[in-house]
Amino acid sequence: MLTVAAIVTNLFEDSEFIDPAEALKKTGHTVVTVGIREGEVVWGKTDNSPVKIDRAVDSVSVDEFDALLIPGGYSPDKLRVFDEAVEFVRAFVTSGKPVFVICHGPQLLITARVLEGRRITGYASIVQDIKNAGAEYVDEEVVVDGNLVSSRGPADLPAFIRTMLEILE
Amino acid sequence: MLTVAAIVTNLFEDSEFIDPAEALKKTGHTVVTVGIREGEVVWGKTDNSPVKIDRAVDSVSVDEFDALLIPGGYSPDKLRVFDEAVEFVRAFVTSGKPVFVICHGPQLLITARVLEGRRITGYASIVQDIKNAGAEYVDEEVVVDGNLVSSRGPADLPAFIRTMLEILE
Repeated sequence: MLTVAAIVTNLFEDSEFIDPAEALKKTGHTVVTVGIREGEVVWGKTDNSPVKIDRAVDSVSVDEFDALLIPGGYSPDKLRVFDEAVEFVRAFVTSGKPVFVICHGPQLLITARVLEGRRITGYASIVQDIKNAGAEYVDEEVVVDGNLVSSRGPADLPAFIRTMLEILE
Repeated sequence: MLTVAAIVTNLFEDSEFIDPAEALKKTGHTVVTVGIREGEVVWGKTDNSPVKIDRAVDSVSVDEFDALLIPGGYSPDKLRVFDEAVEFVRAFVTSGKPVFVICHGPQLLITARVLEGRRITGYASIVQDIKNAGAEYVDEEVVVDGNLVSSRGPADLPAFIRTMLEILE
């Protein structure tokens, strides 16, 4: 069974963290929440989803994890101003380990400058940002390009989670 | 006295609409809120700032206004998925009339593809998006480049408002 880091902070899209995390746990994997401060409680956009941060991003290494989950909402916008969060995401993508990214999650990949030449999808509002980062934007429910697995938003969660579990098997 | 359109929807950064709008009104200008639906009430991030939308963006023309204000927060992220909002912003920038943009406001300019070769500032989280759009990111409290006037966020509001009022004189 594998250990998956989920990088998240306040205003995450609730279902985009909760549903994949529950599916991972139910299939025997371990989910470690990575955020700005260890022990901090962060909240989703609906204010109904408190999540405790297990590890501070400046204290973790890619070596400790088998895959990375980047939920969307406004959490990626908040995370991308922290150099340590951007570096962690960049290291994950370049490591070749699976990176599961949904909705606004690609914003972190843009700041990490790892999208040049990649095929990816994401939320409608950031399509031009994705294209300007040198990636090919693909309007499909799940796009797999090497270790990068992406979906557009909550409506794509079933396909996103199915693909994630298949890849981790 | 001039008529300034303020394009705004839910989750705007409260002070970035309220403070410039009040300053404009107090100096004799008219502020017209432009949003998705006429008559809709939208709310700022703090839930303390209800704003009634005067005009739907699909019913307005640049000819009706002398300048455009784009407050930040998450309002620009929500607006940039509406083609009519993007077209209105694009038409304003290319008209040569003043466009005052702050914080996440440049996200609308990115989707409108009007930043190539321009000098602009904006919120820290979107620096890479601004650069990828072909603009020069300038880390100053106010950047004036032709008709494009930009600031980084709430802390820059005094300088942003001073510059706005000077330009409209």
